[in-house]
Amino acid sequence: MKRLAVLTSGGDAPGMNACIRAVVRKGIYHGFDVFGVERGYEGVIDGLFRPMGLNSVAGIIQHGGTMLKTARSERFTTAEGFAAALRQLRQMAIDALIVIGGDGSMAGAARLAAAGIPTVVIPGTIDNDMPGTEYTIGFDTALNTVLEAVNRIRDTAASHERVAVVEVMGRSAGHIALMAGLACGAEAILLPEHPTDMDDICRGLKQTYQRGKLYSIVMVAEGAGKGFDVAAQIAERTGFKPHVTVLGYIQRGGSPSALDNIMGSRMGALAVDTVIQGNVNRLIAFRQGQLVAVPYEQAFADKRGIDLALYELASILAI
Amino acid sequence: MKRLAVLTSGGDAPGMNACIRAVVRKGIYHGFDVFGVERGYEGVIDGLFRPMGLNSVAGIIQHGGTMLKTARSERFTTAEGFAAALRQLRQMAIDALIVIGGDGSMAGAARLAAAGIPTVVIPGTIDNDMPGTEYTIGFDTALNTVLEAVNRIRDTAASHERVAVVEVMGRSAGHIALMAGLACGAEAILLPEHPTDMDDICRGLKQTYQRGKLYSIVMVAEGAGKGFDVAAQIAERTGFKPHVTVLGYIQRGGSPSALDNIMGSRMGALAVDTVIQGNVNRLIAFRQGQLVAVPYEQAFADKRGIDLALYELASILAI
Amino acid sequence: MKRLAVLTSGGDAPGMNACIRAVVRKGIYHGFDVFGVERGYEGVIDGLFRPMGLNSVAGIIQHGGTMLKTARSERFTTAEGFAAALRQLRQMAIDALIVIGGDGSMAGAARLAAAGIPTVVIPGTIDNDMPGTEYTIGFDTALNTVLEAVNRIRDTAASHERVAVVEVMGRSAGHIALMAGLACGAEAILLPEHPTDMDDICRGLKQTYQRGKLYSIVMVAEGAGKGFDVAAQIAERTGFKPHVTVLGYIQRGGSPSALDNIMGSRMGALAVDTVIQGNVNRLIAFRQGQLVAVPYEQAFADKRGIDLALYELASILAI
Amino acid sequence: MKRLAVLTSGGDAPGMNACIRAVVRKGIYHGFDVFGVERGYEGVIDGLFRPMGLNSVAGIIQHGGTMLKTARSERFTTAEGFAAALRQLRQMAIDALIVIGGDGSMAGAARLAAAGIPTVVIPGTIDNDMPGTEYTIGFDTALNTVLEAVNRIRDTAASHERVAVVEVMGRSAGHIALMAGLACGAEAILLPEHPTDMDDICRGLKQTYQRGKLYSIVMVAEGAGKGFDVAAQIAERTGFKPHVTVLGYIQRGGSPSALDNIMGSRMGALAVDTVIQGNVNRLIAFRQGQLVAVPYEQAFADKRGIDLALYELASILAI
Repeated sequence: MKRLAVLTSGGDAPGMNACIRAVVRKGIYHGFDVFGVERGYEGVIDGLFRPMGLNSVAGIIQHGGTMLKTARSERFTTAEGFAAALRQLRQMAIDALIVIGGDGSMAGAARLAAAGIPTVVIPGTIDNDMPGTEYTIGFDTALNTVLEAVNRIRDTAASHERVAVVEVMGRSAGHIALMAGLACGAEAILLPEHPTDMDDICRGLKQTYQRGKLYSIVMVAEGAGKGFDVAAQIAERTGFKPHVTVLGYIQRGGSPSALDNIMGSRMGALAVDTVIQGNVNRLIAFRQGQLVAVPYEQAFADKRGIDLALYELASILAI
Repeated sequence: MKRLAVLTSGGDAPGMNACIRAVVRKGIYHGFDVFGVERGYEGVIDGLFRPMGLNSVAGIIQHGGTMLKTARSERFTTAEGFAAALRQLRQMAIDALIVIGGDGSMAGAARLAAAGIPTVVIPGTIDNDMPGTEYTIGFDTALNTVLEAVNRIRDTAASHERVAVVEVMGRSAGHIALMAGLACGAEAILLPEHPTDMDDICRGLKQTYQRGKLYSIVMVAEGAGKGFDVAAQIAERTGFKPHVTVLGYIQRGGSPSALDNIMGSRMGALAVDTVIQGNVNRLIAFRQGQLVAVPYEQAFADKRGIDLALYELASILAI
Repeated sequence: MKRLAVLTSGGDAPGMNACIRAVVRKGIYHGFDVFGVERGYEGVIDGLFRPMGLNSVAGIIQHGGTMLKTARSERFTTAEGFAAALRQLRQMAIDALIVIGGDGSMAGAARLAAAGIPTVVIPGTIDNDMPGTEYTIGFDTALNTVLEAVNRIRDTAASHERVAVVEVMGRSAGHIALMAGLACGAEAILLPEHPTDMDDICRGLKQTYQRGKLYSIVMVAEGAGKGFDVAAQIAERTGFKPHVTVLGYIQRGGSPSALDNIMGSRMGALAVDTVIQGNVNRLIAFRQGQLVAVPYEQAFADKRGIDLALYELASILAI
Repeated sequence: MKRLAVLTSGGDAPGMNACIRAVVRKGIYHGFDVFGVERGYEGVIDGLFRPMGLNSVAGIIQHGGTMLKTARSERFTTAEGFAAALRQLRQMAIDALIVIGGDGSMAGAARLAAAGIPTVVIPGTIDNDMPGTEYTIGFDTALNTVLEAVNRIRDTAASHERVAVVEVMGRSAGHIALMAGLACGAEAILLPEHPTDMDDICRGLKQTYQRGKLYSIVMVAEGAGKGFDVAAQIAERTGFKPHVTVLGYIQRGGSPSALDNIMGSRMGALAVDTVIQGNVNRLIAFRQGQLVAVPYEQAFADKRGIDLALYELASILAI
């Protein structure tokens, strides 16, 4: 194997640049010609390959986003687009393609693998909602961004003795809401994976207020309800006037945290080793404190929900 | 004069704690008994006065919000509430009341002054929309918070080659949108004080895109339109799919910036000097690089809009 | 068991407050009377116990340092001081003492255990240099602080085309230097655990410079040499004029990262569960992705050095 | 006038990129051909001119340092080097040169002006120690960096009940130490411009400690003494064991603050207007809240020290 390509796909995530850098430099170190593909699978179809030298990845590790740009590709899901992608990869004589992205990107990589293009997937998405792995690149930075935002909101909430509702990302998975809620000591956390009893929550808010708490933080995953709706329900049941913040896209950017750059670097390096060893068509996964390469079908089968014990812990600690 | 009271009123703003600290310590230094009133004019009515010693303001300068809490007081605008407030101030034998807040708070202080209670107002609001002064405590921290948020959003916008719409605070005044827009190099800024030509803006977005710009930032003061509406209009006219962030309450909190703590400290100290000199019933104002004490009527008469030359500059620099 | 005490000992670390909060609230939840001891073992000797209610730990989770204060206690290492500590613990009828600190603190807790006072230790030190556990509370925040500092230094280094030497904490253990060096893409990392060949490093710096690198970061653990000495050696061998930053105490403080607050909360909760289950005289340890309670002797025996594979990876990625 | 060149010289400062962007874009807007010179006066001598298009300054406003790189040029102070610089500027037919830098850079610009090359200087240095202007680009970011560092150090100081000595930049001017000291509420500030009575300072530290202060911050400008020496003197006189942090180069970098980007943008734009109006050979200065263009000789004559009233205020507020 001599020619390696790397792309980022789906939503961008902080730490992707460290990962690209690791693939490029470790690839070159082991004698590969490395190519970057711009704009994900879109760029494969359009042939946006560019050779990556050692210096091409200098000065990027501290930046959020992805230097290779990213996109969601409709075309790649069509027979025609997929065929064009295959054609380009073959024409470029790519021996293995490393894909940094989420579960949609892994599905794409699995299709390429089935069509005879060796691929390796590195989990990169802030949502941490990928099967087969306990960690995805970008999750830690997103948690810290939410935490920092809540710390700001806290000042105002405490000064006005208010309830603050914070809506965070997470359509079908509540990892960000749960872990950020635990980290910031949220009084209530609303998750898509768990039924919410607003009466119960409001009772809690009133009780803690009577006991002397100055303010409360209610963390809402977008999949569990709109922040403004939740605030309206709280207002109706308690008479409090919650204020609402929808954190939106600030959760996706920012200079990567140490952990995301470390994980990005290590995962990128392992992906190259995996190619060298011929263990292709696998997900680089973090499991029980270790990085391992897991075959796609095994990864897809290993659905991971949130840890309900942590949800319960967050409730106990916020009393 | 011997007994000084201080309160924070209206929305909280970073730097208020530095200001309270300055009033308390400089007051004590000059021989005053200083009292803090909790929860703004509400607390005056309810008699929430507490004596402030030197140590009462230790360890607060680095925190956003206000240690004295704040509130908007409906009762204070009624004859009954106002009378109760007067009664409390007289009963406590307060010789001068220092009010940290916005223009509503200044109106309240002016009413107290007219009723015979000497007052001094320190401008404190993140919106920088107060008559009579070029600066209000909290504005600089808010600008930096917006700038930092935009820097995060920029990563994602650049990776996806998108338009990012950022809605910031400012119902009737666009100071935050204008100055943060200038600081972050926004491609377009929508202000309540200035008509917006969406066709013109969209033409600009398309031109810069064709010229090779990777992404664009559109900064919207909430008084100029809802971020989501603006995004819809851009989508319709350009075919771009803008993403939207509503920064909300994170703009109000956070550890104060150096400038806000310096201004808070200096303004607090000058308020005490103003009381000592008997120059009461004035706004502590920043004008032409200097702190001065301006009589209320003069301050109210000095309406200040945004600086349209800066708006024009921002447009030129974003080409 | 009914009466629980908690203290922080040794150097403070971000996340200790989340841990104290977890011990207090989970303790109360399970029916314990919980006491906080101020100033570590010094406070035990001096009887600085204070009852902790639910509200006593409100509004602390976002702050670095420790609300219980901490100290290194010489007296506790003397027979007399130790006897006094035992006396105080017995007089207060403490059924179990939870100690948050480093390996010195664990040694103290083991002595108390041998004398009949049930103890549980939670690993808290920014250095991550404790036997028996892969993680200590505060490490992640310290890494992020170093990373942020290096990102600032990078701007100046790049503008001046210089070598920047950064000295970080770590007298006998290079965890911070290694992991922060990996996270920031340092060109060279000097560790106390690994021999340093300055000729080799300087050759590398010159090569990358000739290849076009704008600047280089040299990360030095204090145990591997003084930053200024390292800079002098580089200057002599290369003709570059490195500039030096000694990060010092900023590495110990700061608002805790999400991971440190999550780990602090989880470890604090598990310590209480461990007491309930009677599994005392153990270290709460993070191993292979899981939290477990390990008997002290086993923990002490499990010396953990740095991961040399990561050192090698950092070298490869910095080419 | 048709051809404009811009360079950054001396130490880099955050906000220089916003300033370069403003010069380039406003210059192009008014029909100039704009050239960037790399590496300050060194680059003039070596002919490192590059044409700057609109896109050449995209995506730089959020970065510290300077995209044009900077250097201190020994050669430019020699007759030979200066002659070479003149030759290059004439050969490139530069009609005006805009120099962003400190007082050394202004001296260079004045020499060029005397030799017939129209120049305009924009004050850019974190030290705020330039004659003729109340503000220099980079000062505000440096203050905020120091403030943030002190906030971290504060956590540890408070947890250990210690004195923290913080050494900041400022060889001959104490602006950073004074204003950051005021902003963070330092208990003592040591400045090169003001005699320091260590007995007095130590008496103050002991008194506040006896009164119950948990910790003290001593801010030292490097020109007033080495942090470690100051700590030794405090230790000797008080018995406290101060810990020391030397902030070093982290003060020079970092994403620019809002104020520095606004000032950088406005000053850059005014420099172009000044060239258009033929008012060359001037310093763009901030005075009494306004930007003005001041002839060099007038600027050099206008030495500005620190404001001793603020020094006194800082002392009163730290009691």
